[in-house]
Amino acid sequence: MIETPYLLFLGDAPDPLAAKVAQGIKDWRPENCVGQLRLEGCKADMKLPDMTLAEAKAAGAKTLVIGVANRGGLISQTWKKVLVEALEEGFDLASGLHNLLRDEEDLAAVAKATGRTLHDVRIPSVKYPIANGEPRKGKRLLAVGTDCSVGKMYTALALDAAMREKGMKSSFRATGQTGILITGDGVPLDAVIADFMAGSIEYLTPDNDDDHWDIIEGQGSLFHVSYSGVTMALVHGGQPDALVICHEPTRSHMRGLPGYQLPTIEAVRDVALTLAQVANPACKVIGVSINTQHMGDDEAAAYCAEVEAKLGLPTVDPFRHGAERLAEAVAAY
Amino acid sequence: MIETPYLLFLGDAPDPLAAKVAQGIKDWRPENCVGQLRLEGCKADMKLPDMTLAEAKAAGAKTLVIGVANRGGLISQTWKKVLVEALEEGFDLASGLHNLLRDEEDLAAVAKATGRTLHDVRIPSVKYPIANGEPRKGKRLLAVGTDCSVGKMYTALALDAAMREKGMKSSFRATGQTGILITGDGVPLDAVIADFMAGSIEYLTPDNDDDHWDIIEGQGSLFHVSYSGVTMALVHGGQPDALVICHEPTRSHMRGLPGYQLPTIEAVRDVALTLAQVANPACKVIGVSINTQHMGDDEAAAYCAEVEAKLGLPTVDPFRHGAERLAEAVAAY
Repeated sequence: MIETPYLLFLGDAPDPLAAKVAQGIKDWRPENCVGQLRLEGCKADMKLPDMTLAEAKAAGAKTLVIGVANRGGLISQTWKKVLVEALEEGFDLASGLHNLLRDEEDLAAVAKATGRTLHDVRIPSVKYPIANGEPRKGKRLLAVGTDCSVGKMYTALALDAAMREKGMKSSFRATGQTGILITGDGVPLDAVIADFMAGSIEYLTPDNDDDHWDIIEGQGSLFHVSYSGVTMALVHGGQPDALVICHEPTRSHMRGLPGYQLPTIEAVRDVALTLAQVANPACKVIGVSINTQHMGDDEAAAYCAEVEAKLGLPTVDPFRHGAERLAEAVAAY
Repeated sequence: MIETPYLLFLGDAPDPLAAKVAQGIKDWRPENCVGQLRLEGCKADMKLPDMTLAEAKAAGAKTLVIGVANRGGLISQTWKKVLVEALEEGFDLASGLHNLLRDEEDLAAVAKATGRTLHDVRIPSVKYPIANGEPRKGKRLLAVGTDCSVGKMYTALALDAAMREKGMKSSFRATGQTGILITGDGVPLDAVIADFMAGSIEYLTPDNDDDHWDIIEGQGSLFHVSYSGVTMALVHGGQPDALVICHEPTRSHMRGLPGYQLPTIEAVRDVALTLAQVANPACKVIGVSINTQHMGDDEAAAYCAEVEAKLGLPTVDPFRHGAERLAEAVAAY
């Protein structure tokens, strides 16, 4: 659990895209952000107050979150100076970088001396159990995709927000590093040891109120041969009551797999539902989320309408049209 | 890769079952065994020559394999004495025990001083790649199960042996600790990090002769909620051309999951084939392997005949009836 609120570290981000983790935190959990810290040359801006470490500390910030990708996989000396000072001033550090904070000898030494915590969210910090498959109280929804990177995290975050807006009890459950930094908690599923994958998702989505929904971030796809095992563990460990299928209609092939065509939404529906009903016979597909970023407004509306007519399920692009109709489908469950 | 041949260490096995790893090596790779080493009170016997370390060394043994489960998870002082002597006399050690050889300070120190290797086969020794899904030369067969522990390893080993007997090119590919000790090589799939599972199986079953078959040991079941992600990675990483479905008809519930019924063979056939054809559209189910250990001869024969008639696939218990009919089905592929 990463302590909030955060000061977002944007470093010397060469462009706004480099700071997409910070943007995600700002967009989805603005209440967790007291300000931003930018170095000379930073080209990203979260429209948060620019603060020094001391100012952020005074404003209540507990953790400095690295919200920017670094170049060439190295933590530069310019960054290092700020990170060391942050530890000395009483901040924890949180990072989703490939190269770990804990592997930097100077950071590890200062963290130890100051009693601060280094959160490397790519690495599990919990010894997860083996899944026991027992039914849990409360409801769960899982976003499953026809491919990787089709908008499963966005869909889950938007649905969670729309459900809260309607006064429903909902928790977004993060299963990847960006989601973990956004919410401060979660399971870095792609780094979990095989035998404990499904158990880690049971751990992430425990018993809850009967009318509470865990909205579980999906990973990979049952049809993506590199990562399908990770998806499978989500389908069984999550015991979903409901599935939302996520799709990006303009892909010419599966992400990273030039020889592989995308499956149809119907194919994902059939296989995912068959497997999900092993763990939860009541599971239903309640909607479809289309990522229409490469389509015009009319084309996007027409495509969603076509899918909706064919599958008989509410079909929206949550970014373009909002997630209210998906939230209504959950409410009607 | 564990160097062969082996001296099998049976320790003070309290009963034959405790030495089932040694039994597996003796049954399936007798040519890898020069002898056995038993301590006082050992109740297991592989019908191999009893040898001292020096005698085994003279007979060419390279590795002392711990072929027996230990009690209470501890490596006793009685065992330790033999293991240290083995290292000093030039043996490597190999073990599938939960507690690792490398975590025993005295063994680690002696191995370092003598330049010998400690093989803990529960832990991956390779940095596996992420699966790329590219087609590979040669053929592959995967054993899939309705449940865990229904005889997938036995089926794969028996099929591999029957195929070699017929003069076919075949390699058993181990994905669990017992299989790895039997063959000296393989992937401990349940201990691999999630993102690299499918890649580890691509690594295990590389390009080969067009008429060569990798017979891949299965793990778990697509219908076993604790381990289905591991099975999924085998289905996609293995790119099987052929599947054999393994089933044990007398189970009242899934292993370790009292609330879960076993799926039908047909359900496993349909889901496994749909998913396998994502990676290899030519994939076919070529036979069924029934574990009839809890049935009488007549009941076993009747059950296999019934499944064979219903599914239209050769159906045998390889332990009872041999694996020749499955090998013929592969030959006819």
